[in-house]
Amino acid sequence: MRGGRAGPYDGAVRVHVLKRLLVGEPLSTAQARHERLSKVTGLAIFASDNLSSVAYASEEILRVLIIAGPAALELSTPIAVAIAGVIAIVIYSYRQTILAYPQGASDYIVAKDNIGAAAGLTAGSALLIDYTLTVAVSVSAGIAALTSAFPALFPLRVWLCVGAIGLIAVGNLRGLRESGRLFALPSYLFIGGLLALIGVGFARYPATGAPPDPTAAEPVVALSAFLILRAFASGAVALTGIEAVADGVTAFKPPEVVNARAVLAVLAVIMTLLFVGTTALADLYDVVPQAHETVVSQLARQVFGGGLIYYYIQGVSMLILVLAANTAFADFPRLAFFMARDGYLPRQFSNRGDRLVFSNGVVMLTVVAASLIVIFDGDTHALIPLYAVGVFTSFTLSQASMVRRWLRLRPPRWPWRVAISTLGATTTGTVLVVVAATKFLDGAWIVIALIAILIMTLVAIRRHYEDVAGQLSLDGYGSPEEISHTVLVLVGDLHRGVVEALQYARTLSPGAKAVYVETDPERTRRLEEKWGRHGLGVPLVVLNSPYRSLLGPLLEYVQHLTERPGKHVVTMVIPEFIPARWWQHLLHNQTALLIKGALLFRRNVIVTDVPYHLKH
Amino acid sequence: MRGGRAGPYDGAVRVHVLKRLLVGEPLSTAQARHERLSKVTGLAIFASDNLSSVAYASEEILRVLIIAGPAALELSTPIAVAIAGVIAIVIYSYRQTILAYPQGASDYIVAKDNIGAAAGLTAGSALLIDYTLTVAVSVSAGIAALTSAFPALFPLRVWLCVGAIGLIAVGNLRGLRESGRLFALPSYLFIGGLLALIGVGFARYPATGAPPDPTAAEPVVALSAFLILRAFASGAVALTGIEAVADGVTAFKPPEVVNARAVLAVLAVIMTLLFVGTTALADLYDVVPQAHETVVSQLARQVFGGGLIYYYIQGVSMLILVLAANTAFADFPRLAFFMARDGYLPRQFSNRGDRLVFSNGVVMLTVVAASLIVIFDGDTHALIPLYAVGVFTSFTLSQASMVRRWLRLRPPRWPWRVAISTLGATTTGTVLVVVAATKFLDGAWIVIALIAILIMTLVAIRRHYEDVAGQLSLDGYGSPEEISHTVLVLVGDLHRGVVEALQYARTLSPGAKAVYVETDPERTRRLEEKWGRHGLGVPLVVLNSPYRSLLGPLLEYVQHLTERPGKHVVTMVIPEFIPARWWQHLLHNQTALLIKGALLFRRNVIVTDVPYHLKH
Repeated sequence: MRGGRAGPYDGAVRVHVLKRLLVGEPLSTAQARHERLSKVTGLAIFASDNLSSVAYASEEILRVLIIAGPAALELSTPIAVAIAGVIAIVIYSYRQTILAYPQGASDYIVAKDNIGAAAGLTAGSALLIDYTLTVAVSVSAGIAALTSAFPALFPLRVWLCVGAIGLIAVGNLRGLRESGRLFALPSYLFIGGLLALIGVGFARYPATGAPPDPTAAEPVVALSAFLILRAFASGAVALTGIEAVADGVTAFKPPEVVNARAVLAVLAVIMTLLFVGTTALADLYDVVPQAHETVVSQLARQVFGGGLIYYYIQGVSMLILVLAANTAFADFPRLAFFMARDGYLPRQFSNRGDRLVFSNGVVMLTVVAASLIVIFDGDTHALIPLYAVGVFTSFTLSQASMVRRWLRLRPPRWPWRVAISTLGATTTGTVLVVVAATKFLDGAWIVIALIAILIMTLVAIRRHYEDVAGQLSLDGYGSPEEISHTVLVLVGDLHRGVVEALQYARTLSPGAKAVYVETDPERTRRLEEKWGRHGLGVPLVVLNSPYRSLLGPLLEYVQHLTERPGKHVVTMVIPEFIPARWWQHLLHNQTALLIKGALLFRRNVIVTDVPYHLKH
Repeated sequence: MRGGRAGPYDGAVRVHVLKRLLVGEPLSTAQARHERLSKVTGLAIFASDNLSSVAYASEEILRVLIIAGPAALELSTPIAVAIAGVIAIVIYSYRQTILAYPQGASDYIVAKDNIGAAAGLTAGSALLIDYTLTVAVSVSAGIAALTSAFPALFPLRVWLCVGAIGLIAVGNLRGLRESGRLFALPSYLFIGGLLALIGVGFARYPATGAPPDPTAAEPVVALSAFLILRAFASGAVALTGIEAVADGVTAFKPPEVVNARAVLAVLAVIMTLLFVGTTALADLYDVVPQAHETVVSQLARQVFGGGLIYYYIQGVSMLILVLAANTAFADFPRLAFFMARDGYLPRQFSNRGDRLVFSNGVVMLTVVAASLIVIFDGDTHALIPLYAVGVFTSFTLSQASMVRRWLRLRPPRWPWRVAISTLGATTTGTVLVVVAATKFLDGAWIVIALIAILIMTLVAIRRHYEDVAGQLSLDGYGSPEEISHTVLVLVGDLHRGVVEALQYARTLSPGAKAVYVETDPERTRRLEEKWGRHGLGVPLVVLNSPYRSLLGPLLEYVQHLTERPGKHVVTMVIPEFIPARWWQHLLHNQTALLIKGALLFRRNVIVTDVPYHLKH
């Protein structure tokens, strides 16, 4: 029990310093209120996910239509308009949800409150998957914007994606407001860039006209209603991220509800402009999707001719996409917190870290999203079929919940509200069916299966916590059985560390005994000789071990003691010396660890290490 | 502290069952004496290393000479005869060593006893490296015998080598005698096979003559004295393994000395016959070394024409080589035991396992040898330059030690003994210089550097153990300072597990207190309410934590307590519930672990877990 030096544990100190450098100094609980967002930064943070889908949603429509030949691409603009209609309905509906849930209303909570636990868990599972895919899809699309401009980077795309996810994760572990500031600018630069692209594109078209079609692709299949629905389902990814604002109401500065609703309204206008505009422009310029260059990149190249402004468009597309993943980094941990608080996710997700962030949620999201990127080789197009199922599942459940809520609570103008929410629910429900049906074999089945597995896991976790609470409950628990107590000191030799352990054991119980496992009678003789001089009068019990096993005879002896009548507890005191440097651990038997492992699962046995700190 | 179920720890049981299946049932210490070898099995075990070098030593001579053109190969037989002379001298000298060290005499011990610690450490380091290379070289040469017969297996050679090392390791972990029986037969089959090859080869030659030389290679360099010395140095690997018998005297049945000396004498005769015979035969048949086929394989193919007997020769060559590695598996752990006993190697190497084997030495050797195989891509020829330096370093030191011993003790006929040992020392010393000089850049430098590093490591380890012994010594240690004692129970809530911990803490000290770190005043209020009903009257100390850190306030409080006058020890009791299934651990905060880690290095603080076993 003597003083160790700080020196040898420099390793732990270094990790700590690295963490402070990356994550910043800890923030106190009282500082929590100040980490709030204004409307301007709030739009940037919560809208980046939704807006950024402009960078790939038009392309996904074209990628389906092109199968039926270049002529079918004409259908892209009407499809985009239909999707914009859905966006308007969904946003209008969510503005109502915010009124009903001024404390922030994840679809999980809305569904749980108004329909029941099963609906809540379905929406929650869908959202957890959705947020994870948001990170994977946005980052891979962002890196695709980069590699469109610099094709030499294409082979490095998986590494670039993983690196970008790591950067966002570190930003988020540092806390929300700093992230907000960092991410506001790119969103506005992107909106400006795309508006310029659309404006200049349409203005210049009469003068320049479309270039000659470079790839006169032959149609693979005939145009069908199924194909049109598939194209619609692909473009529907433009709706991802709309729910983020309703979920994050409490992150806004007061008045939170007003600010959040205003942001949603602005988002609807901007999103319609950008998405329909980009799709119509692609249609006008006869852009055909390519493997190594995005549609937006092709458009920007044709409209601006590859100069500085082309690189600007690609740069801000990349930034907003990579940073859109940040929405998920705000939402996933918050949802995990709510679900953990209800006992459906491991408790660790409900701890705020040093910087007031739910760090475990951030770390989990980082690991899973990075794995998805690696598995799907950083290919946005391969990830898209997985994406929309989760989004529309939670949308539909959320809107349906609101219908039930209005019918139950009957607030002012409730028939109007019911009508709005019913329209939202049927629209998103229809899109969900279309997406699941037309994308089933492309990957939607994976997400459907995952949602089912996740629901079962969440239920099992909750059941475990309830069970533990029952076992630990003090209801109907009288006073505990009286216990008797034996203190044993395990000795292998007699030295200063052992003497201090003996002394400690005597303070625990005057009847403490020492136990020695004999492997060599000669050593026992020498030990007994020493014991007479330095054993502090503590009795020494010698156990024989014919197989040189320390554990066997010891466990037998302890078993024998605990079988005494009544409740008898044995405390096993283990003197352990702690070397001053890490490599010195390799030079000593890890006996204490072994014994602790073996005794941990014995009833009525408690193990106590008594450390003796070596000085050098 | 309630009864856990055995069920969840099936994992540990499964590992145990696997170990028993591979390694066998434990043997008691009293069974140690029966694990001895007869002369017949002793020759097979200890001679296989040396004899098996016939399978590659001749080839190594030819591989050097061929650089000077096919005509230079004529020199191989005289070089082999010179090496056979060295073998005779070394074996004669070791027979004397056995007389002086009837208890077994590793070169390490001989050098340490008669010259000093530095010489002993040099010999010991050289031997540790030598044994490791014995495994790598023998196994890779054995697999080369296999792939010569079945060229399709050549790409798999690294996997085959690693698999063979694993098999030998398992055999050795089972214990010595069973290994002996297993390994006796192939040694004798090999001796028989090689004698037949040499006999039939010489007998048939006059009738058939050598085949036309297939590869009339152009000389790369002119024949020089340096090249001849290099060829000699390459062939000197034929001496490896001779020391094994002297090292392992105690493994023989009594009378140990007589049996060991007899085995050495027989070994000298057989070895000379096989090595000189094979080299002369290769010379006679104008065999030229090839990349994918060994010289022995070429000889056997020419003499027997590729039939059943050819496969017999290849089969027994492979077996004896792979099994020769077994010598090292007997010797490395034994040497490591001696060095660990002297404090130069980690103590773990001196523990006998369940089966009376020094298991840690076996495991260490397995890992390092398998790594060498992987690094050198299973190529015998690449490993050879590393091999002979260690062997001849220990030979030279051992013989020189014997010279000093005879001069000091002056036993009967001591001048004769001095003469023999001096001849041995000067011969092996000369070979050492030749090997180091002619193979330096090919890899001998690696071994020289490694020996130096190893010596420094061994000295540092010994110094650490001496230092620890000094710090722990009871010499001049009076009775220890009286201590006072506070028992604290860390609580985060109040439930059955906590109540049992409180009850336990009270048996340790009637003045036990509970400590709670407050992160939310509302929770504190609820806890205090519960405490009144179920707290067993133990006082509750509440610590405030503005940064939500459990650790900070706790460490501060403990620090404050231990700073009391005199020696004051704080016991921190941590109630911890142990889930019934492994995955449930993931659902609970590992707070206890965190706190133990943080307190382990505090002076005068002792941490005690009080487990509460959940039932399901």
